[in-house]
Amino acid sequence: MAIEKIETKEAFKSFIEKVEAQDGYRKPVAFGICRVDRGQKNRDKILQAVFPLINWNENFGSAAVLIAALQDSGEKVDFTASEQVFDVSDAMIVNAVAAFNPYLAEAEGDAHKNVQVIKELARIADCEELDDNFRVVFLFEDAAPQSVEAVYIKLYALSLGKAALRSVNLNGAFGILQNVAWFGNEPFELDWLRENEIELKLNGAYPEIESVDKFPRYLQHIIPADNTRILDSAKVRMGAQLHPGTTVMPGASYINFNAGTTGAVMVEGRISSSAIVGPGSDVGGGASILGVLSGTNGNPVTIGENVLLGANSVTGIPLGDGCIVDAGIAILEGTKVVISKAELEKIKEVNPSWDVAVEDENIFKGVELAGKNGIHFRQNSMTGQIIAMRSRREVKLNAELH
Amino acid sequence: MAIEKIETKEAFKSFIEKVEAQDGYRKPVAFGICRVDRGQKNRDKILQAVFPLINWNENFGSAAVLIAALQDSGEKVDFTASEQVFDVSDAMIVNAVAAFNPYLAEAEGDAHKNVQVIKELARIADCEELDDNFRVVFLFEDAAPQSVEAVYIKLYALSLGKAALRSVNLNGAFGILQNVAWFGNEPFELDWLRENEIELKLNGAYPEIESVDKFPRYLQHIIPADNTRILDSAKVRMGAQLHPGTTVMPGASYINFNAGTTGAVMVEGRISSSAIVGPGSDVGGGASILGVLSGTNGNPVTIGENVLLGANSVTGIPLGDGCIVDAGIAILEGTKVVISKAELEKIKEVNPSWDVAVEDENIFKGVELAGKNGIHFRQNSMTGQIIAMRSRREVKLNAELH
Amino acid sequence: MAIEKIETKEAFKSFIEKVEAQDGYRKPVAFGICRVDRGQKNRDKILQAVFPLINWNENFGSAAVLIAALQDSGEKVDFTASEQVFDVSDAMIVNAVAAFNPYLAEAEGDAHKNVQVIKELARIADCEELDDNFRVVFLFEDAAPQSVEAVYIKLYALSLGKAALRSVNLNGAFGILQNVAWFGNEPFELDWLRENEIELKLNGAYPEIESVDKFPRYLQHIIPADNTRILDSAKVRMGAQLHPGTTVMPGASYINFNAGTTGAVMVEGRISSSAIVGPGSDVGGGASILGVLSGTNGNPVTIGENVLLGANSVTGIPLGDGCIVDAGIAILEGTKVVISKAELEKIKEVNPSWDVAVEDENIFKGVELAGKNGIHFRQNSMTGQIIAMRSRREVKLNAELH
Repeated sequence: MAIEKIETKEAFKSFIEKVEAQDGYRKPVAFGICRVDRGQKNRDKILQAVFPLINWNENFGSAAVLIAALQDSGEKVDFTASEQVFDVSDAMIVNAVAAFNPYLAEAEGDAHKNVQVIKELARIADCEELDDNFRVVFLFEDAAPQSVEAVYIKLYALSLGKAALRSVNLNGAFGILQNVAWFGNEPFELDWLRENEIELKLNGAYPEIESVDKFPRYLQHIIPADNTRILDSAKVRMGAQLHPGTTVMPGASYINFNAGTTGAVMVEGRISSSAIVGPGSDVGGGASILGVLSGTNGNPVTIGENVLLGANSVTGIPLGDGCIVDAGIAILEGTKVVISKAELEKIKEVNPSWDVAVEDENIFKGVELAGKNGIHFRQNSMTGQIIAMRSRREVKLNAELH
Repeated sequence: MAIEKIETKEAFKSFIEKVEAQDGYRKPVAFGICRVDRGQKNRDKILQAVFPLINWNENFGSAAVLIAALQDSGEKVDFTASEQVFDVSDAMIVNAVAAFNPYLAEAEGDAHKNVQVIKELARIADCEELDDNFRVVFLFEDAAPQSVEAVYIKLYALSLGKAALRSVNLNGAFGILQNVAWFGNEPFELDWLRENEIELKLNGAYPEIESVDKFPRYLQHIIPADNTRILDSAKVRMGAQLHPGTTVMPGASYINFNAGTTGAVMVEGRISSSAIVGPGSDVGGGASILGVLSGTNGNPVTIGENVLLGANSVTGIPLGDGCIVDAGIAILEGTKVVISKAELEKIKEVNPSWDVAVEDENIFKGVELAGKNGIHFRQNSMTGQIIAMRSRREVKLNAELH
Repeated sequence: MAIEKIETKEAFKSFIEKVEAQDGYRKPVAFGICRVDRGQKNRDKILQAVFPLINWNENFGSAAVLIAALQDSGEKVDFTASEQVFDVSDAMIVNAVAAFNPYLAEAEGDAHKNVQVIKELARIADCEELDDNFRVVFLFEDAAPQSVEAVYIKLYALSLGKAALRSVNLNGAFGILQNVAWFGNEPFELDWLRENEIELKLNGAYPEIESVDKFPRYLQHIIPADNTRILDSAKVRMGAQLHPGTTVMPGASYINFNAGTTGAVMVEGRISSSAIVGPGSDVGGGASILGVLSGTNGNPVTIGENVLLGANSVTGIPLGDGCIVDAGIAILEGTKVVISKAELEKIKEVNPSWDVAVEDENIFKGVELAGKNGIHFRQNSMTGQIIAMRSRREVKLNAELH
């Protein structure tokens, strides 16, 4: 039973309302159509999902069209599941084209991107078999992902900035993704390489493998903002989030998935998984921000605005705004830090809600200074002592909050 | 004089015995057939040797076949030499096919890989000239390599885990390899690029050079285990050894040739040439393990099991099991380290064979703590002193040894 | 009005003299012909300029030919401008061929490279339209660059070693270059990728982007010396200068534009923009040399000969010859450094012009030790104090200077 061609935008609106009114219907929190790469040896294994577009708490009308197009081509959509994934069939495309009809002509440039996807799929379906190359995924809730497509749509949501870092449920994602050899944008099963190694090598046709990983690289899927620079694609994993204006240098830098920047940041060091760096900050050459899996006792590290992490410094605690960690020193949760009376008083000025007693000499553990503004961490080169003082970097206090 | 087609496995066995019984015959410690890349300008220079398969103290029957196939096609094999290399000729292939005849049908999948190589070469020889694209190399002893093919088969032996790290004679290998420009898997002579620069550049055909080095990258030649991950192919040089389960991140990490891991290791730092890291250990972001050429007085560094090297730490001494080097500190042979009485007693418990007198305060040079288990190296942030204590990481003592 | 075919080298000489005698003629400090990559979307935007050859204060006869070839094909060359850029037209090529006629036959190999460029362009013009793919640029003075071609010819001058580091005016270069996505050697406009994302991705034709940057990589344009090695092309930016014999490892290393080496140097760390490292020196794994934009108060750092920067060290001051900075320590302008009487006297011996009073204990700020020879910077591991002593590395004093 096919969808009849819809002639007007009014009729389209009624159609959507009818679809959404069906029993048990749930608007998806996310949906999208992707092209998948399947295993060379095990075609049922999906190695990668490439989305030209994802929808994240948006475009519910388009979602309704795709759901109706599936239903009317014989698929059953289970709205009680956390996610649903289907092959994209010719019948589904025909249905979607019929439903999107009032928008087909104007779907170009920035307008109606979901309709553009359907138009392009219709064009492809005219020329070749769709086979099982295309898939459509709906997430009805942000539960632990069950499919490769669900993992990828979540990584896209993070990398496109549609979902906040640390806000998405990626539990079990590592177990769902295949470990593959990446030849440019194309994933290969390691077993297929093994089975064909003799033939490939003797014929000079062995592919140039650039990485072996479950995740692809950010730049394989994401087009950054005009003022964002990434000098080496290997340095940013898919699922990282880079705010416009961020620059990632090629020395020791690295940004893992579910980590990144919330403003223009200069990145010459490591932003481990779950770490977030704020606007105007500078992660110096070789500086390490520890992740939840590497020494922070599970506490994710947030770095505030206008912070300077010196070259080869290590930071294992969250920092407020306007902080400095000097080159080459490590500030971890257990690091003891000495602050003089005068400096602690100056630091308090930019941390008005911090209720701390001021002694002549004050000794803190790193974790006690977590998230405080305007602190400059240093090592006294005459005594080796780790000390802190008021940094000379600006801290903008939000007057409304204090 | 050609080898006659062998009809049965029994006859094959006799054939091998006859070959091996010849005067002066030596079983090769290593052999293999490779496809070579030759200089664009100097065709007699071999720039790279790609092996679909190498044999290392194994498959002596196949070695005998290849030697007989060479001899019966007119080549003289000098068993007194440390190595011998020959072009693979049509006549040699015909001979080898005749000898391997009882195994041809069953040579597929994981069975009879050497026979598979010959089968594929026979197929290629049917379609095109072999020219001098293929070479066969035999090492009759592990002496200093004399040819590019010999260097490569040794690098393969290390990278495939067929030879232990530091166990192979690579003396003079650097002098044998050409420094070339790598365009993907293909090596180019720098002089050829120079001579063709004007034409290539004006026609938009200049190749995308990814590195200029004597060595290729590990992933150009080696298929890692299913649970091994290498996030950037530039980070692991051919000749490195990665035990299954090893992960190499793309930040500051690097594994040189004749260095690597002997268990599942998380690598986010540098494993310099000759350094070895044991199972369950973690080389933190930017951590440096010094190599024999960089500050260890020629003593190669072995890191034990379950060791944690903190971010941006530097280790210039061997470490036993269950050690920790804190983030940002350097432990070199000459570094003075203070250990309290109580901690030294605890450390002795996990180093039962260590005969050391315990004082109230004990000062060691780094080199005196080399290879000891269960030590946690720290810098006291109140005094700047480098101290050591018993780490909280588990040390599994082998009861049989103590 | 075309140039008439010149028949003899004598006539060529006269021709050049006539061209150079014209009113207002200025010999260009730099000139060259490049192939340009233009925007896929905005064809008037030049994304990259590839020079097969540049001239830097040299080959003024060839410059005169190109200028005359332009003038006689109807272009007006403004010698009062700091730079001039023109499309290369068929008419210009015909003119240049006519003028270069006495050299055409012998222009091959290393001889008459500018003539070779014209010959190849003439060959291309015979086969296809030149369109606006080729450009010729003249710099009449080293002023702030006004065009992409001018920026590139200056980066080439640095990277080819034709101009000394820090000697070239690059003011405003960042503003002139487009930020583009690099697919191998080919630059793409980000907006073009955005407009074609749906089509490219659904058809499996999305390009493998390797970086997003205004600058290309050194190895996209430059052929290094036979004994130079760069293990990862991402590590060296166009505009860097690498003296023959320099090796750049793939760990944490990086060399920015307008930075590099003036002798054979082992680079495993970061050489920031404006930093220069001298012959025989070793930049250890993860070592950072700060740049003018990262903590040196605008003072560019020069590292002398035979210097060793330890793994993960940080250097923010210039160093003389034969210095050592120990692994893991940071020497910045404000770092206080203690030197004993005996050691300071030894240091003075290799710094004969240093007029310093020697006390029992001497405390210097890092900046006061800038450029001094033979200093070994250490951290006392018993007290945490930063100290300095006479290094054991050789300092070759120039007898003529002292």
